[in-house]
Amino acid sequence: MARIVMKFGGTSVADLDRIRAVAGRVAREVEAGHEVAVVVSAMAGETNKLVKFCTDLSPLHDAREYDAVVATGEQVTTGLLAIALQQRGINARSWQGWQIPIRTDGGHGKARIDAIDSALLIERMRQGQIPVVAGFQGIGPDNRVTTLGRGGSDTSAVALAAAVKADRCDIYTDVDGVYTTDPRIVPRARKLATIAYEEMLEMASLGAKVLQTRSVELAMKARVRVQVLSSFEDRPGSDLPGTLLVDEDEIVEKPVVSGIAYSRDEAKITVRRVPDRPGIAASVFGVLAASNVNVDMIVQNVSEDGDTDITFTIPRLELRRVRQLLEDAQGRIGYGLLLTDPEVAKISVVGIGMTSHSGVAQTMFKALAERSINIQVISTSEIKISVLVAEDYTELAVRALHTAYGLDG
Amino acid sequence: MARIVMKFGGTSVADLDRIRAVAGRVAREVEAGHEVAVVVSAMAGETNKLVKFCTDLSPLHDAREYDAVVATGEQVTTGLLAIALQQRGINARSWQGWQIPIRTDGGHGKARIDAIDSALLIERMRQGQIPVVAGFQGIGPDNRVTTLGRGGSDTSAVALAAAVKADRCDIYTDVDGVYTTDPRIVPRARKLATIAYEEMLEMASLGAKVLQTRSVELAMKARVRVQVLSSFEDRPGSDLPGTLLVDEDEIVEKPVVSGIAYSRDEAKITVRRVPDRPGIAASVFGVLAASNVNVDMIVQNVSEDGDTDITFTIPRLELRRVRQLLEDAQGRIGYGLLLTDPEVAKISVVGIGMTSHSGVAQTMFKALAERSINIQVISTSEIKISVLVAEDYTELAVRALHTAYGLDG
Repeated sequence: MARIVMKFGGTSVADLDRIRAVAGRVAREVEAGHEVAVVVSAMAGETNKLVKFCTDLSPLHDAREYDAVVATGEQVTTGLLAIALQQRGINARSWQGWQIPIRTDGGHGKARIDAIDSALLIERMRQGQIPVVAGFQGIGPDNRVTTLGRGGSDTSAVALAAAVKADRCDIYTDVDGVYTTDPRIVPRARKLATIAYEEMLEMASLGAKVLQTRSVELAMKARVRVQVLSSFEDRPGSDLPGTLLVDEDEIVEKPVVSGIAYSRDEAKITVRRVPDRPGIAASVFGVLAASNVNVDMIVQNVSEDGDTDITFTIPRLELRRVRQLLEDAQGRIGYGLLLTDPEVAKISVVGIGMTSHSGVAQTMFKALAERSINIQVISTSEIKISVLVAEDYTELAVRALHTAYGLDG
Repeated sequence: MARIVMKFGGTSVADLDRIRAVAGRVAREVEAGHEVAVVVSAMAGETNKLVKFCTDLSPLHDAREYDAVVATGEQVTTGLLAIALQQRGINARSWQGWQIPIRTDGGHGKARIDAIDSALLIERMRQGQIPVVAGFQGIGPDNRVTTLGRGGSDTSAVALAAAVKADRCDIYTDVDGVYTTDPRIVPRARKLATIAYEEMLEMASLGAKVLQTRSVELAMKARVRVQVLSSFEDRPGSDLPGTLLVDEDEIVEKPVVSGIAYSRDEAKITVRRVPDRPGIAASVFGVLAASNVNVDMIVQNVSEDGDTDITFTIPRLELRRVRQLLEDAQGRIGYGLLLTDPEVAKISVVGIGMTSHSGVAQTMFKALAERSINIQVISTSEIKISVLVAEDYTELAVRALHTAYGLDG
């Protein structure tokens, strides 16, 4: 017997038929003798509808009221799934964030979970009752509903799994696991049976949108065994049909490269002819930090004639705003020219075995060179190498790298 | 300066434009220097949608989960109206039943309000903040959301007005007040400037569906001055443009008859040839009480040859079920024949002046006789006389009585 937290996303509970199907899946775990708690998202489309109501009424709406409105989506699903479970003869009960309570900080609209009072839930689970918990939300120090930001239900599930000391946290989603790369680009991409938290973190933050990054961070910190699996495919024969996130130490034979990730969500900015003196990078990025712009890759080349160029990437959606910020600060920074390019893609190879192997970067550069793909910017970390290329080359680059690292199935 | 509770029903907050219009109305009271709290219903259609979800999943769904699901409708409206008010520069804050809290009994789906902790709300109102309170709901002794039954937002508003000691509770609805009768039947029906609680109670329970009956009972008990007015008509010139519910003592010249109400929601049942012996009525109505059937008018004629007939009315929607109940009990009760008639209407004249005037009933019987309308059943109380007639005669009867009692405008 294990204790399992099961989490179902918006597409998995999109209508009453799917909610009934989710009840069936939960029933199977219950019948297998497991103690189960369930975390649910809002029915697909509901959150967007509620967000639009708020935005239409006031573009600069109060985050507390936004939270009061938007959190109702998950509340509806908890009640409906509890009814669907009861209809199957299973003892179930809905729980909102304020009822448990799931305590968060006061950051309305993007709150962080501080603590979950799990004693009552554990007691109910031991008695055979299934708690159906609203994802994405908690209660702040001001006794008001808070939400955790988009995709926050993953984080709710992992935090709940940590709080009730679950043996596993199963995240049911519309893909059936984590792949070596996007199967829409590389049909021979393979599903990974296991992936290290650190790798998943890089994959998630690099645009492989399977799990919210914060949920992976939390899983790593609290050592929660997270399994990603499909809510639409049914493989009763297989024990762990998805991808299991595990600690690095649990992977004996560490693959050099586990996967190829890509992201088209970035834009490149080059600030040319910046005076090459101490403090100049601080003056450029100080302007952006003051306006909460999230800067990703940064490259500064060696100086030439006392001037230098600085290149960096930002979220593509912020390009217009950042351009304006930098133009306004031209006098203060003293640069010559501002170049922007939204048509770039970031391609990354990720693998925890990378640290103990040489030549990993060279394989990447060679594979891209053989396809005449120009590398614009390079950035590396312990377990990943990222390059920026022209967006048109995205698929070609991903396929070349998938083959070069021997990942084709 | 007055303290006012304003309540807006589902059609008044049906979309974002109407919510903006409601914010405008609230703003006007605030600008006039009043302290205001607002109670809102769910956007029109939302509650029905949520109820259908529950019913589709399970006809016999758990009332606690029904409450968790259905209560979200009002929660959405509170947040949206708070945003719309803030957008106008008005300090506003949403409040759910569990936050105030509005404490109810544990009767999920049809809970009754026990107490409202109003100290915090009053403090906020004094500071110039507008509480926007979710109608229709509270929190039960089990720390779970409860709902008050359909139309419960009226009761929420009156209870809140009593709790914060409001000078007035304005119920904005899709009619602009209480009329001497239904203006769709009698175009010359007049709007009443005032009506006594007792009269309103009879009008409401007799099918004039302006206010939920429980809200009128509560207003009468707590002496809350309730005004019914339209959220669509705008008469800034007039001080009290609707109908004010007041204590009987406040009405100096009590009208003999204030209004004519009618209801097509009933069905007539006659149990013929019942043995005329003690306890027989108890045996008939015991069967119905055991199944929670709400019996309205009851008539038993004098006996003939040791047998008697009993006639009564029940909600028309329950006719099939009640017929079955009585047929199953025929042996036990020992009646000869069961006659049912769904095509009846109850016509009532209501007025607090009735008690001190003679001939009121005679005016009714004469007016109906002159139009050859057959009276099937008669039932009277202190301030009303009700008769049952064939449904086809409803409009004719209402018009005849409206004229006979001098109510035509």
